[in-house]
Amino acid sequence: MNRSNISRRKFLNTAGGATLSLAAANFLSCSRDKSEQKPNIILIFCDDLGYGDLGSYGHPTIRTPNLDRLAAEGQRWTNFYAAASVCTPSRAGLLTGRYPIRSGMCDDNIRVLFPWSAGGIPESEVTLAEALKTEGYATACIGKWHLGHLPRYLPTNNGFDYYFGIPYSNDMDKVRNLSMAEQMDPKTEEFNVPLMRNEEIIERPADQNTITERYTEESIAFIKNNGEKPFFLYLAHTMPHIPLFASEDFKDKSLRGLYGDVVEEIDDGVGRIVETLKEAGIEKNTLVIFTSDNGPWWTYMEQSGSAGLLRDGKGSTWDGGMREPTIFWWPGRIRPRVVADLGSTMDIYTTACRLTGATVPDDRIVDGMDLSPALLESASSPRQVMIYYNGRRVFAIRKGPYKAHYFTKTEYIGQKEQKHDPPLLYNLNHDPSEKYDIAAQHPEILADLERELDKHQKDLVPGENQLIKRIE
Amino acid sequence: MNRSNISRRKFLNTAGGATLSLAAANFLSCSRDKSEQKPNIILIFCDDLGYGDLGSYGHPTIRTPNLDRLAAEGQRWTNFYAAASVCTPSRAGLLTGRYPIRSGMCDDNIRVLFPWSAGGIPESEVTLAEALKTEGYATACIGKWHLGHLPRYLPTNNGFDYYFGIPYSNDMDKVRNLSMAEQMDPKTEEFNVPLMRNEEIIERPADQNTITERYTEESIAFIKNNGEKPFFLYLAHTMPHIPLFASEDFKDKSLRGLYGDVVEEIDDGVGRIVETLKEAGIEKNTLVIFTSDNGPWWTYMEQSGSAGLLRDGKGSTWDGGMREPTIFWWPGRIRPRVVADLGSTMDIYTTACRLTGATVPDDRIVDGMDLSPALLESASSPRQVMIYYNGRRVFAIRKGPYKAHYFTKTEYIGQKEQKHDPPLLYNLNHDPSEKYDIAAQHPEILADLERELDKHQKDLVPGENQLIKRIE
Repeated sequence: MNRSNISRRKFLNTAGGATLSLAAANFLSCSRDKSEQKPNIILIFCDDLGYGDLGSYGHPTIRTPNLDRLAAEGQRWTNFYAAASVCTPSRAGLLTGRYPIRSGMCDDNIRVLFPWSAGGIPESEVTLAEALKTEGYATACIGKWHLGHLPRYLPTNNGFDYYFGIPYSNDMDKVRNLSMAEQMDPKTEEFNVPLMRNEEIIERPADQNTITERYTEESIAFIKNNGEKPFFLYLAHTMPHIPLFASEDFKDKSLRGLYGDVVEEIDDGVGRIVETLKEAGIEKNTLVIFTSDNGPWWTYMEQSGSAGLLRDGKGSTWDGGMREPTIFWWPGRIRPRVVADLGSTMDIYTTACRLTGATVPDDRIVDGMDLSPALLESASSPRQVMIYYNGRRVFAIRKGPYKAHYFTKTEYIGQKEQKHDPPLLYNLNHDPSEKYDIAAQHPEILADLERELDKHQKDLVPGENQLIKRIE
Repeated sequence: MNRSNISRRKFLNTAGGATLSLAAANFLSCSRDKSEQKPNIILIFCDDLGYGDLGSYGHPTIRTPNLDRLAAEGQRWTNFYAAASVCTPSRAGLLTGRYPIRSGMCDDNIRVLFPWSAGGIPESEVTLAEALKTEGYATACIGKWHLGHLPRYLPTNNGFDYYFGIPYSNDMDKVRNLSMAEQMDPKTEEFNVPLMRNEEIIERPADQNTITERYTEESIAFIKNNGEKPFFLYLAHTMPHIPLFASEDFKDKSLRGLYGDVVEEIDDGVGRIVETLKEAGIEKNTLVIFTSDNGPWWTYMEQSGSAGLLRDGKGSTWDGGMREPTIFWWPGRIRPRVVADLGSTMDIYTTACRLTGATVPDDRIVDGMDLSPALLESASSPRQVMIYYNGRRVFAIRKGPYKAHYFTKTEYIGQKEQKHDPPLLYNLNHDPSEKYDIAAQHPEILADLERELDKHQKDLVPGENQLIKRIE
């Protein structure tokens, strides 16, 4: 939706029926008086980062001292899910607060948008940036977009004042067919990916050697230049999606090899951004969120990340495909702790709206839930259920600790889709690696999960498929 | 060796040829003046705890706030190895500082000592407790021993002033054949394991429901009662080896189920011990070390732990069998950091000797290395090589990041021994899950590892096999 034309219809006040938490209500009544104190929000979103790839999530040789410090000073969530196991639908879920099936940003076979794609995020969707604009936020998207690269789909037409980044994945626009060996030792000129500022291509191919560093610099400049308004910065790193590139200061520095170099450069950038907040004296009014779009891409062997103790990776509805390292930091506001409750990237939408006074659209189903009571108080997360989509079809559902798989496809061994009837059932709190099927012992739990799924599907109106549209 | 009869021959001064580090030398010259300031040492050793089973090592649903705090305030090592992948040889390596093949505490088929065993730790070995006794330490072994249960092998005849615990594993002395289901829902009276104080059985069957709690109580009492002398406390928890038991305060409390209850009770005990040190005002003169004997025992499904991102578990020479979560804490002395250098439980022996002024025996090969420069300064670990024994045979060797497997046996799928010629080769820093064999690309590394192994084997005199001896 064009930023100059946000329908007020979508923003009917939700106070009547919504479960506005005490924490959010207190904050809102407070922020009504001092609107200048609306919190800044920085959302740092990685690409293909695995559950086990940070020091604080158990990686033995990747050093992430900056993120680990945020985790220790803030909240480290251990059951936090991306909205999908691949890039485009995951980002659609993040920025709309809705399962991607609702916006149509998913397909069973064409799993993400490609340079030939004509589709993108529908105008009718209200992105988080659009929601925050109505509250007077300055907004920037820095990094990978991947929600459509025709002009009308770009960030600047979806609520962002400013855009600097690449419109789709960094392994697209290959100049020729590359062998696996070439992809593992990449040259930036082999990928003719455009780098854009707002709606213009400013560099092609984008020099990926310095892309992480430049994203950090752009982020710092945006923060420094926004003294007046509250801001929303969406920093969506291109990395550690292959092809991997690190700048000179980080190359060959990590014990983990190139993959570690790349993650350590991202971590360093997080440290510099936090330093910038402190220098500006606004760290106590800024919520920093760090997570990723999906699990590690096994295909690229040593150059793919680690899902830690979780099963499988990117493209899979086993937990390694969708559970992500997730950190919330806001000094003085967030209660430092490790949270094992369920959360999802979709919840970031609703939580950010509640914390800033923005209205969650009530003319549609928004799947995101308000996590602020868990973040600011010691309440439990309101999220009980997570649905795992593979394209447009449900493969699995989790409720509380229990997860039922109706279909699986195990990416790291290249396994084809398998149907499970009866479904597989795991207790993810007891068995996070999804090893011990307990379906036979717990038919009543399977029945309950089935009812939850029926509830979800009863009112579901799948959005028009955006991923099958081709540029003529 | 009887504590009253420690041969001085073993304690020839090593100053001539040894590489006494600056840190240790400073400490020693200091401690010569104020011998009352020799540091206390508390070594907390778990049983079958996996690499991924603590919060600070990435477990999503086991909460270990006390250990995580020690890790943050001290050093968390991420490439630290037990001396073997099963109980008896691992403990022999820990307490002698030598690969268990030297003491003979290992066998290819009989992997640990059993109630019918007549063997045990040879008198000629100098345990860490014996070494520290010569420096005036008060010593206690609280917990599982498993280095021989005939009187001459018990802790009180191996340098410990005091013993409270069980002499072998808690799943031994079954009253009858138990089904897997019975073992998964255990009753303490089904295991007729003796609980001993010094050389007497004081309870049989040991009430395992309260055993972790009682070990903690005994440890606290020992610390409180030792005002005069420096002390060495070896707290070797029975848990989380199956059968699992937690006391009333912890049962059904963990999100992770019974296994989590058990680990959280151990963590709570660690917190109480540290609290005791602080109350006594001796925390700044006490080195606390936490680690375990080997990886998780897959056989017991949900009741076994997690090796995190590492491959396989107990009984295996894949890293999941031998790499352990390892924390060093000594406020004001240890430099807080995460250490990815190599270390081994055998190094605890040599390090403790150096820190206390005790002499490392020089009439034999001691494999332990002095980690004090890495602990107290920011030096690298001196350990470059780790050899992975399966019983009396070498299965694998690691040097720096590289590990070659000559034989493997993958426990979690019940795979039989496989010979690899050429060996499998992995870069464990890049590929901690041991997935991508790089032997074909690096014959020169294989040759180097082969030379290291030759060096180790050239002077090796295997000890008399203690595990095949049976009570007549």
